Amino acid sequence: MGGDIGPHVTVPASLQALASNPKLTLLLVGHPDSISPLLANQNAELLSRLRVIPAYETIAGDAKPSQAIRQSKGTSMRIALELVKEGEAQACVSAGNTGALMGLAKLMLKSIEGIERPALMTVVPNQKKGKTVLLDLGANAECSSDMLVQFAVMGAVMAEDVAGIPHPRVALLNIGEEETKGLDNIREAATVLKSIPDINYIGYAEGNELLTGKTDVLVCDGFAGNVTLKTMEGVIRVILSMFKSQNEGKSSSLLYKLVKKVVTKWLNKRFSHLNPDQYNGASLLGLRGIVIKSHGAANVSAFNAAITQAVQTVEKQVPERIASRLAMVLPKSN
Amino acid sequence: MGGDIGPHVTVPASLQALASNPKLTLLLVGHPDSISPLLANQNAELLSRLRVIPAYETIAGDAKPSQAIRQSKGTSMRIALELVKEGEAQACVSAGNTGALMGLAKLMLKSIEGIERPALMTVVPNQKKGKTVLLDLGANAECSSDMLVQFAVMGAVMAEDVAGIPHPRVALLNIGEEETKGLDNIREAATVLKSIPDINYIGYAEGNELLTGKTDVLVCDGFAGNVTLKTMEGVIRVILSMFKSQNEGKSSSLLYKLVKKVVTKWLNKRFSHLNPDQYNGASLLGLRGIVIKSHGAANVSAFNAAITQAVQTVEKQVPERIASRLAMVLPKSN
Repeated sequence: MGGDIGPHVTVPASLQALASNPKLTLLLVGHPDSISPLLANQNAELLSRLRVIPAYETIAGDAKPSQAIRQSKGTSMRIALELVKEGEAQACVSAGNTGALMGLAKLMLKSIEGIERPALMTVVPNQKKGKTVLLDLGANAECSSDMLVQFAVMGAVMAEDVAGIPHPRVALLNIGEEETKGLDNIREAATVLKSIPDINYIGYAEGNELLTGKTDVLVCDGFAGNVTLKTMEGVIRVILSMFKSQNEGKSSSLLYKLVKKVVTKWLNKRFSHLNPDQYNGASLLGLRGIVIKSHGAANVSAFNAAITQAVQTVEKQVPERIASRLAMVLPKSN
Repeated sequence: MGGDIGPHVTVPASLQALASNPKLTLLLVGHPDSISPLLANQNAELLSRLRVIPAYETIAGDAKPSQAIRQSKGTSMRIALELVKEGEAQACVSAGNTGALMGLAKLMLKSIEGIERPALMTVVPNQKKGKTVLLDLGANAECSSDMLVQFAVMGAVMAEDVAGIPHPRVALLNIGEEETKGLDNIREAATVLKSIPDINYIGYAEGNELLTGKTDVLVCDGFAGNVTLKTMEGVIRVILSMFKSQNEGKSSSLLYKLVKKVVTKWLNKRFSHLNPDQYNGASLLGLRGIVIKSHGAANVSAFNAAITQAVQTVEKQVPERIASRLAMVLPKSN
C-alpha cells in the first residue's frame, strides 16, 4: 500500500484518521511485513478498527497502465478495488499509479450509466474562503465534448451535495472568455451546457480565475486540469518555501527575530487553507463505487485528508447522487 | 492603439520608455484625437523622439480573428505591422486581439523558414532568481509534434541569446515525468528532441515545476501554456491581494500597524520579481520581424515592460538568430 509514499506515511495517516473518527474502520491492503511493524505498540482501540489484508504484489508508479492492469492479479491496488466491488469496503484510497488505478477501477467497478469515462476531481479552496470543484485532473488527457458535459454534471453534484453550494455556477476552462476562443470540443460542450436548464452554466473561465471564486465548478480535459492544479500547487509551495527560507545570517537582531516570528505565524494562519496538504485527495467520479486518489508524494496529514474525503464521499452517497442527476439532466439517447 | 487598455495606459508607458532609453524612438499608431491630448505639456525632448501615425480603425478584442484580418485595412494593428514590414519600425508592440495579431503578423511578416506557425513566448522569473522561457502561450491551441520541436529550438535561442543562459535545459510540459505519459504529439516531440545534439533536452516537466528553475525552457501547446501562465499569474495576484486586504477594523493598535508596515515592505521586496507586471510582454517568435504582445489588461509599468522587451529583442537580433539556429539544428527535409 501507499504507492510512492509507502506504509511509513499511509499507516500513521490511517491511525490519525481512526483516532479522529470513532465510527471509521480501515482495511490496510499491503505486505504485512511492511505494515505490521508500524502498528506495534499502538492504541488497542484503534487497532480493533483496523485490519491488514495481505497483498504481496504492487503496481509500479511508472508502469504503463495497460500492462499494469493485465498483470494486476495479487497487487494491493487490485485487492483493494475487489474489496469495494464485493461490498467489503465502501471506498478505496490509493496513492499509486493514477493510470492503472483509473483503468482497473473502471474495469472492476464499472461506470455509471451515461458516463463514458470517469474523471478525477478535487475541491480547491478559493480566495473568498469558498470552494471550487475542479475536474478532470488527469484521468483523460483528451476529452470529447460529451465527456466535458458529463464532467460538468458530476462537478455540479459534488459542489451542491458535498461542498454544500446551492445552484452551483459551472464554467469551462478556456484560453479566453469570448465564445469563439479555444478548442472545438470546448465550444461544443458550451453549446450543450447552455441548453440544460438544471445546470447553472456561466461560460468560460481562464486559468487565472481558479482561485478567485468566479465559478463553483471548473471543467476541463485531464491535461489542462493537471497542468492548472499542479501549477497552482507549485506556485503556492514556492511562495510558502520563500516565507521560510529567510537568510538568518544577514541580520539576527532580537527585533528581526521577533518580526520574523510574528510574520511567519500570520502568514501560516492566512494561507493555511491554500496549502496543498489541506485538500489532498482526488475523487475518481463516475464509477459505481468510491475511489480516492491521493497525491503520490503526500505526507501524513495530506494522506489523512484523502481518507477524510473518502468518508465524506461515502456519507454523501456520491455515486447514487450522480446517477440520479444524470438520469434527470441528460437525454436518454446520450 | 492599446487594445483593451487604450492610450491612457500606452501613452504614459511610451513616455516612460522614452525617458529611460535615450536611444529609443517610438511611433504611436492610433487615433490622433485620443493620443494627442495625452501628449500635451510633455517634455519636448521626449516628444521629439515620438511620432503619431494616424489610424482611424481598430480591431475589437472579441472579434473573430479570421474576420478581423479580412477587415483589417486601416486598423492600428495592421498599420503598425506594415511599418515593421517596410522597415520603418524595428518592432511592433500591441495589447490588442491576440488571434488577430498573430494571424495578421504571420500574413504580413511571414514565418522564418522551418517554422510552421509562430509561437507566443514569455520569460517567467523562477524561485532561484533565474529565468524560465515558456512557450507557446496561446498562439496555437493545438500543436503537432513538429511544431513543439520548432518551439523548443526557438525557446533555446531565447534562453541562450536573450536571457544569457549557457547551454539551456529544455523540457516538454506534460502530466507526468514518465516517458509513457501524456499526449502523442508530446511523446513524438520528445523522441525528436532526444536526437538533436544541439538541444539540451532534459525530458518532461510538470506544471508545478514552472517556478522551481528545474528547466530553462518549458515547451507546450498554446492551450496548456496559456492555462499554466494564467494560473500562475492568478495565484500570485490572489496572494499579493491577500497581503493587502488585512482587516483594519479588528485590530488597529500602533504595534499592529507597525508590524503590518514591516511585513508589507518585506513581502513586496521579496516577491516583486514574481509580480506579473514585471514580466509583461510575450514575443511572437518565428516571424521575420519582431512583434510583442502585451497583456490586454496591462498597467503603465507592465506596458513599459513590453516596450523594453521589444528593445531587447531588436538588440539581440532574435529573428536572425532563430533562423540560423534552425538551419543548423533541423534537417533540411523538415
